[in-house]
Amino acid sequence: MSSPPPAPPATAVVVVAPGDLQGFVRELFERAGMPAEHARTVADVLVWANLRGIDSHGVLRIPRYVEMIDTGVVNPEATITIRTETPAALLIEADRAIGPVALTFAMRAAAGKAREAGVGLAFVRATTHTAALGYYTLKAAEEGLAAIALAGSWPNMAYHGARAAGVSTSPISIAVPRADGAPVVLDIGTGVVAVGKLTQARKTGQPIPPGWALDSDGNPTTDPARAEIPLPLGGPKGSGLALMFELITSLIVANPILADHLDGTPGGQRHKQNALALAIDIARFTDLASFRKEVDGLVRILKGLPRDPAVLEILMPGERGHRTLQQRTRQDIPIPRAIMNDLSSLARKFGLTPPGSG
Amino acid sequence: MSSPPPAPPATAVVVVAPGDLQGFVRELFERAGMPAEHARTVADVLVWANLRGIDSHGVLRIPRYVEMIDTGVVNPEATITIRTETPAALLIEADRAIGPVALTFAMRAAAGKAREAGVGLAFVRATTHTAALGYYTLKAAEEGLAAIALAGSWPNMAYHGARAAGVSTSPISIAVPRADGAPVVLDIGTGVVAVGKLTQARKTGQPIPPGWALDSDGNPTTDPARAEIPLPLGGPKGSGLALMFELITSLIVANPILADHLDGTPGGQRHKQNALALAIDIARFTDLASFRKEVDGLVRILKGLPRDPAVLEILMPGERGHRTLQQRTRQDIPIPRAIMNDLSSLARKFGLTPPGSG
Repeated sequence: MSSPPPAPPATAVVVVAPGDLQGFVRELFERAGMPAEHARTVADVLVWANLRGIDSHGVLRIPRYVEMIDTGVVNPEATITIRTETPAALLIEADRAIGPVALTFAMRAAAGKAREAGVGLAFVRATTHTAALGYYTLKAAEEGLAAIALAGSWPNMAYHGARAAGVSTSPISIAVPRADGAPVVLDIGTGVVAVGKLTQARKTGQPIPPGWALDSDGNPTTDPARAEIPLPLGGPKGSGLALMFELITSLIVANPILADHLDGTPGGQRHKQNALALAIDIARFTDLASFRKEVDGLVRILKGLPRDPAVLEILMPGERGHRTLQQRTRQDIPIPRAIMNDLSSLARKFGLTPPGSG
Repeated sequence: MSSPPPAPPATAVVVVAPGDLQGFVRELFERAGMPAEHARTVADVLVWANLRGIDSHGVLRIPRYVEMIDTGVVNPEATITIRTETPAALLIEADRAIGPVALTFAMRAAAGKAREAGVGLAFVRATTHTAALGYYTLKAAEEGLAAIALAGSWPNMAYHGARAAGVSTSPISIAVPRADGAPVVLDIGTGVVAVGKLTQARKTGQPIPPGWALDSDGNPTTDPARAEIPLPLGGPKGSGLALMFELITSLIVANPILADHLDGTPGGQRHKQNALALAIDIARFTDLASFRKEVDGLVRILKGLPRDPAVLEILMPGERGHRTLQQRTRQDIPIPRAIMNDLSSLARKFGLTPPGSG
């Protein structure tokens, strides 16, 4: 009885080598009007999300990104400029650059300031969908820094006590380096549940638990077909964090998102995001090698705590994603057929060969 | 039928004027060995918590603080020094100073750096109980800054997937100034529920909801008499944040709390906390008056959203506390008789007149 597990239906997924997928995404965004370096960054960030198993933030997003270029929401030829600069901080005008380009720029700038001043803070004004924030904090942690990123976005989540969307499921990511392993990297939204999970439940028809979402009229629901507005994590805690993230990003860069959306400001519904990236040069405050070992030591202790029988293993932030990355780097990335069909359509539009068909 | 609401039983609470209470607390800590300025800070921070209705972080803590002085955990004559300084950051050695003194110092230092460098970051090494973090961020916001504070503390909360305490209900506070009102100030723990709420449930005997806590053996419980270990907010989200707060405070200042507690390091169970205070000089990045007005505008919009009938009003972070402060400033602070008895015992010990008996 040593037969292998049954293969998924042949039509369900297409398996693509990460390098092929990256090359395809890069070429696609070049043809969509981006400079080669920017297109490469978008490809790196999106395919990284797929490699980590964060498929909701991977190549799935490409049709929407291309549409945002077509409609002028994303500026493919954005000129990113530094509007304000201090010895430790910057305000970066992203000129509607696509999120991965603006956030990569910002985290590098914050890291550079941190090397000089111990801490570096970069505000990002007027970018678009940031993609997975964990990418940027992880890159900084790989260089021996501690890093924090957070973003403000459009109101898709209920404010506690309201029966309507008022804040965003704004994410926060924090990462630090380790000695014997990939960095510890937390990347979470402020909702009870990600919008992607509601979409998933809608597809499977599984009822959702009470406390997850409201319908479009603002009534609590467990019907996946009606669930529209996720509820905030821990009620006032999650919506409070989301509100503060808007206040310390969008309002500091003078580019309000929530208010413009909610009060009917002309053009206020247009997609935009603001963000901040903070980097700390750990070595300025303690011995970096000792810090890394202390992280490893605490990880070991926590993983050895008595385990809830409902879980197979006690996991650190980012640990599952790192394992998926290792596995998908070896065994390639499974892409659902429906998404691959969308990518193939775009390939034809841009005169490219779809990935996985070479 | 216009009779006033029935008065609480005469023995339940003692009502004390804020100034009297502050004066008493100040004198008490002076007699316990603190310099006058430090004693005044402790009095300000604790009585502020009572004024805001955060009674769990108010004068209730005094017997424990005094005990920590008696046992050498708190150094009443601490000499706070700056161990590392960069153009934007500091590492402050708190020398076991009581939390309010160390955190007040740190937030002022961070604010000073922010005025110079746009952003200021102060790490606090080896303090004790920080009291309510919202005090420090609020003070910075009252000066036109945005501020963040967070702290690492002893393992009292389950790590997600573990059936034992592994991380702390570590708090985070974020505050920004407004134009027409007190700052917006969020101050939350990373647990589903505060330890104080479990204590409260134990007193009233009310069963607690599933998902709040484990008993001391690590089993889920709804029995308030057995509930010991709060569960993390949103499972891996809450325990992930708490872990990252330890990593970016305690490990950067080389004063591990969780690992020393959990691995049986000699003296590792001794109470200590580490923290960080971050300040942002908003005026360096945008017009401060406009920022304040934008905050007010968003607050107005959110408060006007369709309301969940289960709540009386949509509240902003810190709004309830500010109203309680206004009310208790006018009508004085109700202190439970049992706590007042403890304070009276301490008053006798130190040769002071208890507050409210003048």
